[in-house]
Amino acid sequence: MRVQHSSQPHRVSTAVMMVFSVLIIAGCAQPVAPPTVTNANPLPSWNDTENTIAIIDFVSRVTDPAGPDFVPEAESIAVFDNDGTLWSEQPMYFQLFFAIDRVKALAPEHPEWTTTQPFQAVLEDDIEGVLAAGEHGLIELVMATHAGMTTAEFEAVVTDWIATARHPTTGRFFTDMVYQPMLELLDYLRTKGFKTFIVSGGGIEFMRPWTSAVYGVPPEQVVGSSIVTEFEMRDGVPVLVRQPKLFFIDDKGGKPVGINSHIGRRPIAAFGNSDGDLQMLQYTTIGNSPGLGVYIHHDDAEREWAYDRESHIGRLSEGLDQAPERGWLVISMKDDWRTIYPEEE
Amino acid sequence: MRVQHSSQPHRVSTAVMMVFSVLIIAGCAQPVAPPTVTNANPLPSWNDTENTIAIIDFVSRVTDPAGPDFVPEAESIAVFDNDGTLWSEQPMYFQLFFAIDRVKALAPEHPEWTTTQPFQAVLEDDIEGVLAAGEHGLIELVMATHAGMTTAEFEAVVTDWIATARHPTTGRFFTDMVYQPMLELLDYLRTKGFKTFIVSGGGIEFMRPWTSAVYGVPPEQVVGSSIVTEFEMRDGVPVLVRQPKLFFIDDKGGKPVGINSHIGRRPIAAFGNSDGDLQMLQYTTIGNSPGLGVYIHHDDAEREWAYDRESHIGRLSEGLDQAPERGWLVISMKDDWRTIYPEEE
Repeated sequence: MRVQHSSQPHRVSTAVMMVFSVLIIAGCAQPVAPPTVTNANPLPSWNDTENTIAIIDFVSRVTDPAGPDFVPEAESIAVFDNDGTLWSEQPMYFQLFFAIDRVKALAPEHPEWTTTQPFQAVLEDDIEGVLAAGEHGLIELVMATHAGMTTAEFEAVVTDWIATARHPTTGRFFTDMVYQPMLELLDYLRTKGFKTFIVSGGGIEFMRPWTSAVYGVPPEQVVGSSIVTEFEMRDGVPVLVRQPKLFFIDDKGGKPVGINSHIGRRPIAAFGNSDGDLQMLQYTTIGNSPGLGVYIHHDDAEREWAYDRESHIGRLSEGLDQAPERGWLVISMKDDWRTIYPEEE
Repeated sequence: MRVQHSSQPHRVSTAVMMVFSVLIIAGCAQPVAPPTVTNANPLPSWNDTENTIAIIDFVSRVTDPAGPDFVPEAESIAVFDNDGTLWSEQPMYFQLFFAIDRVKALAPEHPEWTTTQPFQAVLEDDIEGVLAAGEHGLIELVMATHAGMTTAEFEAVVTDWIATARHPTTGRFFTDMVYQPMLELLDYLRTKGFKTFIVSGGGIEFMRPWTSAVYGVPPEQVVGSSIVTEFEMRDGVPVLVRQPKLFFIDDKGGKPVGINSHIGRRPIAAFGNSDGDLQMLQYTTIGNSPGLGVYIHHDDAEREWAYDRESHIGRLSEGLDQAPERGWLVISMKDDWRTIYPEEE
């Protein structure tokens, strides 16, 4: 978890200056004292592009108490997908690497796995075979590796794994494959009074052990998929035991449902990267004003990965079709981002 | 929602002074600058009793950075049951009054209700008959009155009801039947850096429209029972439609489960009043140090109601048995509270 969070406080962003020019042109008769954001570029890893300006402009509008788009701080909720939006997701969701490592660790206790799919494929390092098992197979993997222990035990396993496991091709810690521009954006929004939430299809208890340190998002602001847990007294101590049964899938139409369940307010800004985030962006922006919808578009094969309409992981097709009419921003990782990952220490 | 939140800043509490005496006797060699709490009694509606002192002592210990029981602010989570802990619950949970009023309002569209229980009992003002329908009947009532509309529509109905309906015997607005001492306690804990959550068996969306104004607890810090909601595009607008199907019961063993799901941390203080809160108090205090468990004991027939082991609503029996060995405080509403409800304006 060696994520670099430092910003570069002495740079003055052209984008920010342009925003103020636009605001002045747009007819702010009364000059207001420039907010502190003018003194330091809050988004140093973002290029001075139209998209960057549009994000800063949105934030300026909803935080201007004198403006028509002002939103009280209590209602300034921003939601972020995780896989592919805050960190990478190729060649497969990072949680799947975790599940695979768990299968291997638990295999000695499960001799039957050597002849049972999808476990056999995992043990033979046959990633194609694992993915071929489809959704049903993946759920089986998750159940076998994420259940059957207490929540405290699971947290310890995740904490250990995330601190030691590395991505197979980049060699980085997974938490070093978070997007530096998005770390800055999270910080920037919080500085402006937003409450930032993660709303991910990933496991809620797979994320919570490390989101505070990596993203500055505390456990109570993480929404995700989950399995059933049951209260139990074990040796006189109360524990929650994770059951091999799905409780909630926080994906597609489930994202607005998860938002309503956990947050109880409609967000005013939503950030995603796939069609799994489509309903979350719709819920945030349609019939809700002001509302900012943003897609992170993976178009940078050189520095990260390039994929959209044809990808099995993180497919983005309907979202690209709807973005223009909905007024959603489509961030080009190639053009809008100066850097992708934090510098390694 | 005319709840009086004002405190009495110029009173100096004997209890607070006693706490400092105790701390000094207990061996604080180095005198520390007294915190601002000495300048104003944070709990003016609490009598200077052992229970009051014990609560203030706990808060002092976990917020003293130099002490052995210090808890970082991010982990200072306090959870509160609602019915019978933050507001009254007799002669039945207030949400049931809401359901009954809804049945009456919707009856013209449901002629079959005049001959179907428990609806017939409701329409005939036969409260005994309603309660005789048992849990199954009550769930039927809730489904018929809480589902079949969007979350936004339901919020509007609740908001309207809570602003106008009155309790049958006190004649007060229901939100004027919150406990003044608990309002002060919520404020006090937040002043000391705690994050306060409601964890109630009541409906999460029945509470959220008014908990911010009444308790200072925002929607995202309310945990409760819920029914299934489904995302839908209606006339091009995204909505969440409430389905007549239970999703989660936030009671008994469900309370720690709900806490884990919504908060993702073990609280360090829990407040309840019935055996439905037993597991929440266990989860907060057993094998978790420091941990404060508090039961509000309804023993004031004159100013509120007196009930415990034999009551159908808010039964408190196992909790009373376990309190001494667990070190839980049992607050006497009669002896520990100077006032019960806020003054009416």
